[in-house]
Amino acid sequence: MKNCTFCNLTKNDEKYLLLETDYFKLYLADKQDYVGRCIVVSKRHCRSLSLLNEDEWIDLKTIVDLTEKMCRCVLGADLCNWSCLMNDFFKSDFPNPHLHIHIRPRHKKPVELGNTFFSDDEFGHHYKNHNHFLLSEDEMKLLFELFQKYIDKELK
Amino acid sequence: MKNCTFCNLTKNDEKYLLLETDYFKLYLADKQDYVGRCIVVSKRHCRSLSLLNEDEWIDLKTIVDLTEKMCRCVLGADLCNWSCLMNDFFKSDFPNPHLHIHIRPRHKKPVELGNTFFSDDEFGHHYKNHNHFLLSEDEMKLLFELFQKYIDKELK
Repeated sequence: MKNCTFCNLTKNDEKYLLLETDYFKLYLADKQDYVGRCIVVSKRHCRSLSLLNEDEWIDLKTIVDLTEKMCRCVLGADLCNWSCLMNDFFKSDFPNPHLHIHIRPRHKKPVELGNTFFSDDEFGHHYKNHNHFLLSEDEMKLLFELFQKYIDKELK
Repeated sequence: MKNCTFCNLTKNDEKYLLLETDYFKLYLADKQDYVGRCIVVSKRHCRSLSLLNEDEWIDLKTIVDLTEKMCRCVLGADLCNWSCLMNDFFKSDFPNPHLHIHIRPRHKKPVELGNTFFSDDEFGHHYKNHNHFLLSEDEMKLLFELFQKYIDKELK
């Protein structure tokens, strides 16, 4: 649609696209407040989980499985926090969002990326909503490459 | 299991049980910081969404659909915030949780329950994690009855 940002993504907007399935796209999130944070976005407009059809729901599970395994294998994540909120879009009188789900990997022990260690200071507790951004652009690129490599290997 | 609270629920613990399916139980949450807050819990021990099997995933979708419809029809909710976090259990060295998902209905306009109106002051924004408890015991009972009645009608 003409006015929808997600329907009109540029190549630059897609630079952290990790995977595209029939119904969803998985991205490494721009906002790396938790190392490895990702976002899954439905390719069509859809305002709630209950409006996903059966094929989309099954497709979503393959992404859930792959993402958790990727975070565990690449980063050593102990668990992932999943949240489907959609709040921002409902500020509008005519909300017309793409369904999206945030994934925050959580780490009991500090994660090593490059030569830096990042600790998850709230491990065992609810994620902080307005946390600081942890990664430099180079670290983002490195993480994206590691994730991409993992996915390529898994989907071979 | 012997030491698991959820495996050993009393009749009183289950007083707000709304629905039991093959693999899950849906409860009206004790903590009504958002009116209509519910929780879905897997009947077996399961530590992450990716470890749900195909039958469980399909079963979960029927609960997602019913819960969102119930919150819309009974309370007029505009949307539901879904979150699967599991943080608390991972404080343990040997986490052995039941998978559980929190559902917070969100309301643009105040919700009427009994003769009281409750407003969702953060509508359009992330839920507050430590909000106040809104409902009295009588209001909890009323809400539970309304939800139960809706589910009975839907599943007839």
